Order: sequence, then C-alpha cells, then structure tokens
Amino acid sequence: MPPLQDQLDIVIPTIRNLDFLEMWRPFFQPYHLIIVQDGDPTKKIHVPEGFDYELYNRNDIERILGDKAWCISFKDSACRCFGFMVSKKKYIFTIDDDCFVAKNPSGEDINVLEQHIKNLLSPSTPYFFNTLYDPYREGADFVRGYPFSLREGVVTAVSHGLWLNIPDYDAPTQMVKPRERNTRFVDAVMTVPKGTLYPMCGMNLAFERDLIGPAMYFGLMGEGQPIGRYDDMWAGWCTKVICDHLGVGCKTGLPYLWHSKASNPFVNLKKEYKGIFWQEEIIPFFQAITLSKENTTAEACYLELAEKVRKGLGPIDPYFIKLADGMLAWIACWQMMNKKE
Amino acid sequence: MPPLQDQLDIVIPTIRNLDFLEMWRPFFQPYHLIIVQDGDPTKKIHVPEGFDYELYNRNDIERILGDKAWCISFKDSACRCFGFMVSKKKYIFTIDDDCFVAKNPSGEDINVLEQHIKNLLSPSTPYFFNTLYDPYREGADFVRGYPFSLREGVVTAVSHGLWLNIPDYDAPTQMVKPRERNTRFVDAVMTVPKGTLYPMCGMNLAFERDLIGPAMYFGLMGEGQPIGRYDDMWAGWCTKVICDHLGVGCKTGLPYLWHSKASNPFVNLKKEYKGIFWQEEIIPFFQAITLSKENTTAEACYLELAEKVRKGLGPIDPYFIKLADGMLAWIACWQMMNKKE
Repeated sequence: MPPLQDQLDIVIPTIRNLDFLEMWRPFFQPYHLIIVQDGDPTKKIHVPEGFDYELYNRNDIERILGDKAWCISFKDSACRCFGFMVSKKKYIFTIDDDCFVAKNPSGEDINVLEQHIKNLLSPSTPYFFNTLYDPYREGADFVRGYPFSLREGVVTAVSHGLWLNIPDYDAPTQMVKPRERNTRFVDAVMTVPKGTLYPMCGMNLAFERDLIGPAMYFGLMGEGQPIGRYDDMWAGWCTKVICDHLGVGCKTGLPYLWHSKASNPFVNLKKEYKGIFWQEEIIPFFQAITLSKENTTAEACYLELAEKVRKGLGPIDPYFIKLADGMLAWIACWQMMNKKE
Repeated sequence: MPPLQDQLDIVIPTIRNLDFLEMWRPFFQPYHLIIVQDGDPTKKIHVPEGFDYELYNRNDIERILGDKAWCISFKDSACRCFGFMVSKKKYIFTIDDDCFVAKNPSGEDINVLEQHIKNLLSPSTPYFFNTLYDPYREGADFVRGYPFSLREGVVTAVSHGLWLNIPDYDAPTQMVKPRERNTRFVDAVMTVPKGTLYPMCGMNLAFERDLIGPAMYFGLMGEGQPIGRYDDMWAGWCTKVICDHLGVGCKTGLPYLWHSKASNPFVNLKKEYKGIFWQEEIIPFFQAITLSKENTTAEACYLELAEKVRKGLGPIDPYFIKLADGMLAWIACWQMMNKKE
C-alpha cells in the first residue's frame, strides 16, 4: 500500500506531548500535518524539524471564519474539525496526542495509516453481514449465502480504528474499572451494518473528506458549553445516518494504536454528565431519522439534519438549538473554505 | 463454565466419519447425542462405546411423524432439525461430521461447547454496536457513548460459531479459489445487529431450543427438492427476523472448529444453482418483513411467517408454496412432540 501523501492530511488537536511526533516520525513524516491548537493562542507548540505542517490557533480561526468562528469549539479537542475544513486533500486521518504506535501480536509496529488507507480504498458491505469479516481481505471472501448482487460493495467513507492499552471508556466505567486495559488484538475489520449506530471515537479515525467531510463536525464542546467528550459521538451519529442515506460505508476494527494515558475520570464525569442523560434521547432520535431523497451530498444532508436536530432535540435543552445553528454555521464556513471552481 | 449435560443435547446428522466421535470424545461424552441419519435406513451407523445417544433413521421419522414426515428432508443433512424437535433439553448444539477440534493461536484445543454456552448464557446487544466487541467478556466493556439503558442487553437465542481451514464458501467461490483456507483466528464474538441478516451456517451452531427452536426448521432440501445447501440459510433468515421481533439476540464469532473437508464444488453448484438466483429475492423479502405484535413466541411467529412466505415467495416458484406447507407441518409436528403440560 503506497503512502498517499498527495491525498491525505493528518489532523491533530493541540500536541501537549513532545514525544508524540518523534514517535510517529517514521509514519507521519511523508504527510502534511494540520495542527489545531485548542487553548491559549499565546502558547507555542513545538513541532520538531522535518515535518511539513500548518498550525492554527484560536486567533487564526477567528480571523479566517470571522463572525462564524463560534461554531468551532474552544478549549476542547473538538476544534480539530477546523482542520478538516481547511484541508484540501481527499482523505483525513485524525489522532490524539496521547496515542502511540502499537504492536501487532507478532511484535511488529502497526502502520496505522497503511491500514486506514486499505480500509478506505476497499469497499464496505453495509447491507448484509459477512461472518468471516472483511470479504476483500487477502485469504477471505464472502461466505455461502451472501447474495452475489451485493458483493461489489459500496464506497467506504469512514475507517474507525481501535486502541490497545487504555480503552475508550466513559467516566462511570473508568471509575468502576480503573485498572482495565485492552490487551486483546482482534484481527478484523468490519462494516457497521446499515441502520445500526456505533460509538465513533475520534482518537484514531480516517475518512474520505470529499465524501463525508461536511458531516464530520465535532459540535460545540469545551468552554461555554454544557457538555464535553461527545464531540466525536455527535460526529459519529451524524455521519452514520448520512452514510446510510448516501449508500456509503463505515468500517470499524483494525488498525489499533496504543492509547497511553487515561484521562481523569472526575473531570470526565463533569464533562459527560449531561451527555449521559441526553444520549438516551439522542440515539433513538438518530435511529428514527430518514433524510429526503433529494439530498444526495453530505452537505445537503447535513443542512437537513440541522433542522431536524433543532426540531427533534431542541425540546431536550436549548443547547441543541444552538448546536443546530452551529451546524448551519459550520456548513457556511465549509462552503466558504471549499469553493467549487 | 460447567458442562450443562442436563440442559444441552448435541444433534448430529449422519456420521460418515468413524474418527468423528473419537476425536470429540473428551468434549462430547458428558452430553446426550441425537443422531439423525439422512440416507438409507438399512445402513448402520457405528457409535463407539461410552456415548449416550439416540439414533433416528428415516423409518423412525416416518413412524413418529406419520403423514407429516414429509416436512423432514430426506437424503440431506437438513434432516438434523428432526433432532431439534425430539430433544427435551433447553439448548441444542449441532455440528457436521467433517468438523474437528481446532486449536487457538496458543496451540490449545478449543472447547467449542464451553464457548457456545458462554455465548448463550451472556446477553446480546442487538440495538447498538459495541466497537470493542462482546462487552460482557472479561477485560472488555461497553465503550464511551454506549447508552446505559441498553447495557443490560437481551437474552441470547443463537450462537453461530466459525471454521478454520476450509471456509464455508458457495460453489462458485470454491471453484474460483480452490486452495483458499481460513487461517485467521479472530478473537471476537459479536451480536448481529437488529435488522441485519447474516448467513447462518449449520456446521457449528448452538441455540436455545426453548426460545427459538420452533423457528429452527431446515426446510425442504435433498431428494425430491429443487434445491440444496440452503437449509441452514433458510433457518438463519427465519430465526433472525423472529429473534429481532422477539427482542432476543443472535451472536457470531467464536468458537472456531476445524472444518476438514471441502465438499465437491460441482455437486454443490448443482444443489445451489436455484438458490443463487432465489436468494436475490428471498433476502429483500426477509429484510422487509414485519411480524404482528400479537405474536410473542417463536411458534406463533413461525406460523405467521409461513403465510408470508406463501404469499411473498410463492410467485417465485411453486417450491415456496410447498415450503410454506412444510413450515406449517413442521410446527404441527413440533407441537405434537413438545406438548405443554
């Protein structure tokens, strides 16, 4: 699998960990990095020699987006979605700065980008479950009883990777199981079936920006917002229902990376608190959504979804009215930054 | 995990392979076996010393079921479902006679029954996808963003195990990839999401007979029928839509067994030929099915399904009218053999 330097950007929210880029150098150096700094713009992020990057802080975001800059979260890694918008590449890979190179069971470093690219370049199979997992992988295929008409698959829009070591748990689970580590390497990639939602984590995520980028908005989190740690979940619910509508696929499984550090469960509980309640209503809302057949692009679907959010989730809390406005502002910014020639 | 001798029967279609039971002796000897002989009733099946078993041949089936015996396939391993009906146990495990004990990656024999029992005794999660697979497994849990209201899960009705070595391919795939072997051990069990169909293979299958047994009919295959090798697929489609309706789960993944021998692809093609065409219409039919809320047992759902099959699939071929009648006859036999006291 050749590196796709000309077609993929790596988007990273604030890098607090100086080892991070050194650790990833063999894998990331061929690519262009977009770093989106989430906190105090006067703080300087150190990027080691030899990386090709652009860095945006809050002042840049304000300058570029003007009176719509509020739609990008402040003091929260949700600001990474600004990087999705400014990229000019076909694909995006995004990663957190506490994630490092993992090893596969035979002890070799996992090339996370290579696997994400494989996932994105091979089809998805959202309409019927293949019991031997990814049918396009070498040594595998569709099993007996898999309809032949569905074996061409559909385009893959999202590749969701997993984490060894610290699992991505919510605060209550972190509190109950402080010592739990994910040590199990599951050698599989699968398509999340049509009509099924999944908890999409932003730690290790790749997607086709051209196809689904406008729906990959990480919402309003962090300073001034009543909720945190639901940025990627929000993007996951929105992208999944839009992918289902557009007939494109979301995969999950390989590649793994090494998640080094559990965030503080007390801080997390405070951030998640409302989300834990709200998700009980948000998820049925997304499960029941149908989008209009006339909307055939992620952009159009996202505008439709924003109005459904306003109407369907607004009654839960005024936050969702603001979020619906944020979704519209996000699309306006996306259009401004991605003018079709 | 204790063996559940008093609660589980092992159902095996004709045993042609003399090594089969010897190979499985350490695992199967504590259980009661039900052997259903599919061909010539005068042939004698040799069961080695020490096994507790009952054996039924065609004459027995005719004698027991009388004028409804035609609903049990003849000269086809689909006849195994007769064993599901005569069992008095809560759980069934069924296996083919060309399947042997597989080894896990650390070289130990896999205890297939132990894993199936684990799968059946722990809940399923059909309403939302957990990216770290089975959340009830030791060392795993629900990830961030998984709704807490769904973490209790639902009862598991079906545990579908997989195969190392010879994969369960259809005839065209066997022909195109004659040397392909499944060497990949995927260390995962997952729930097939609600609303998603999967190709259920009868080679390595366990289920809760009390809950879903009446829907585990393997159809009309073999002698006198226009189709073969779709017996388990048929049972899989029917049980999945009924499990979804009843709010119970179907799991797939571990345990693996060792599938020793590829069946003849030319013979298979002949058997599958019509199924390959028909499944293109049958699957959308099952995907679109909704069952009446009044039907709250597998038995009642299956009777409703039979009439939908008659109406919905009858136009494809008169075979489906006969199959609908077979479904009704099967339930009549089931009721006769499983009288509620």
